[in-house]
Amino acid sequence: MEAGILVSSPTSSSPLSTPIPSVILTQDELKKIAAYKAVEYVESGMVLGLGTGSTAKHAVDRIGELLHQGKLQNIVGIPTSKKTHEQALSVGIPLSDLDSHPVLDLAIDGADEVDPQLNLVKGRGGSLLREKMVEGACRKFVVIVDESKLVKHLGGSGLAMPVEIVPFCWKFTAKRLQDLFEDAGCVGKLRTFGENGEPFVTDNGNYIVDLYFKKDIGDLKAASDTILQLAGVVEHGMFLDMATTVIVASELGITVKNK
Amino acid sequence: MEAGILVSSPTSSSPLSTPIPSVILTQDELKKIAAYKAVEYVESGMVLGLGTGSTAKHAVDRIGELLHQGKLQNIVGIPTSKKTHEQALSVGIPLSDLDSHPVLDLAIDGADEVDPQLNLVKGRGGSLLREKMVEGACRKFVVIVDESKLVKHLGGSGLAMPVEIVPFCWKFTAKRLQDLFEDAGCVGKLRTFGENGEPFVTDNGNYIVDLYFKKDIGDLKAASDTILQLAGVVEHGMFLDMATTVIVASELGITVKNK
Repeated sequence: MEAGILVSSPTSSSPLSTPIPSVILTQDELKKIAAYKAVEYVESGMVLGLGTGSTAKHAVDRIGELLHQGKLQNIVGIPTSKKTHEQALSVGIPLSDLDSHPVLDLAIDGADEVDPQLNLVKGRGGSLLREKMVEGACRKFVVIVDESKLVKHLGGSGLAMPVEIVPFCWKFTAKRLQDLFEDAGCVGKLRTFGENGEPFVTDNGNYIVDLYFKKDIGDLKAASDTILQLAGVVEHGMFLDMATTVIVASELGITVKNK
Repeated sequence: MEAGILVSSPTSSSPLSTPIPSVILTQDELKKIAAYKAVEYVESGMVLGLGTGSTAKHAVDRIGELLHQGKLQNIVGIPTSKKTHEQALSVGIPLSDLDSHPVLDLAIDGADEVDPQLNLVKGRGGSLLREKMVEGACRKFVVIVDESKLVKHLGGSGLAMPVEIVPFCWKFTAKRLQDLFEDAGCVGKLRTFGENGEPFVTDNGNYIVDLYFKKDIGDLKAASDTILQLAGVVEHGMFLDMATTVIVASELGITVKNK
């Protein structure tokens, strides 16, 4: 059970001293509300990018449900990870890939951070590369988050900004990444899993270094280019100027932000 | 046996109607001459980047020979490929890696193209990523080529400019790379090997798309950034502003170009 968030009823604007709590929604329920709202953008016949993670999972389930009910037809899904591939198959969404469908109508996915310009940090789930390939090929990219993901600056949450790197001499690359952002108090950590601290391996056979910043990293476009210029880096988790719509679920209801 | 190149003797400037051929050197012998010249830059105690390919191979052999003769001591080699790793071990060069030695004194490697500003195309042997990581960490980077590798513009030889990409949806990435340089008449081809045309797989588990250009691609720095910004690209074969010295072996002798 995730932390509960108090959702006020419409009568909370009445002159009572405290709002009347009508429903208590978990963070997961907020994610679900955002996901269902995003699926309203889906139309029959669309080629859809299917995101990865706890929020996107609700959207994939909902699309499967609407297909099953006959309310959606002729959908082709392009999954952004092996995990989503399996989930989409299990709920009956016909799948294809970017080689067969290089242009997508719409993608729906979660994000780890969203700034006021709708730039994103993604990839804490580890699927940043495939997500960026698929979502970069979409006419519309709808991002679904709960309000905890809104930040003033990317990296502003104090959580990780992931960078996918080749395993070859990963310590060397991690150190160089950290040095790039020395002024922002950057610390880079190899992502691991399990009790023995084995390196987390992406769907592409690479490692992830999570960068933690103490300060604002400044010009995001410049930061992006600098990271990509480092030999050994495959991709990073900043999704700049890609989202066309962000749907935010909060205790105040749904907010839709358009680019 | 590679194509022989006629090497004139010093008396070729005599008033005879045709130069007197004194030696006929093969392309491989020219490579060897350049490699031996480069090894003159090596001093005892150095941490050395060891290149990959038919020219670099001669340098690795020569370093092994000088170690064996006691003329060089306390050398640590950082190989740029699994192949060079094996070769260096076989000739008795002690090896380490970038994690242990993040700064190198000198690297010696071949190149596929060298332009007048000493920018390079490398990676036709398939080791561009590890070469770029190692050679980007060197104080001095000595490039050894025969004169057939000198071009006016990178891509100017009509041969391949390699790009290492992730295998996931490689056709999509190859098409996007080709489209980036549509104006230069670019054609992208997946590198294959063997009778069945299996994809060539790099030491990092990736594929290579070879880009062929009909025209000059213009600003190399801009081209580099554009390629790296494409999700799915791991690295490309342009080595810009990295070489400090280029040693060219030709029928006229050795030419040393310094940055």
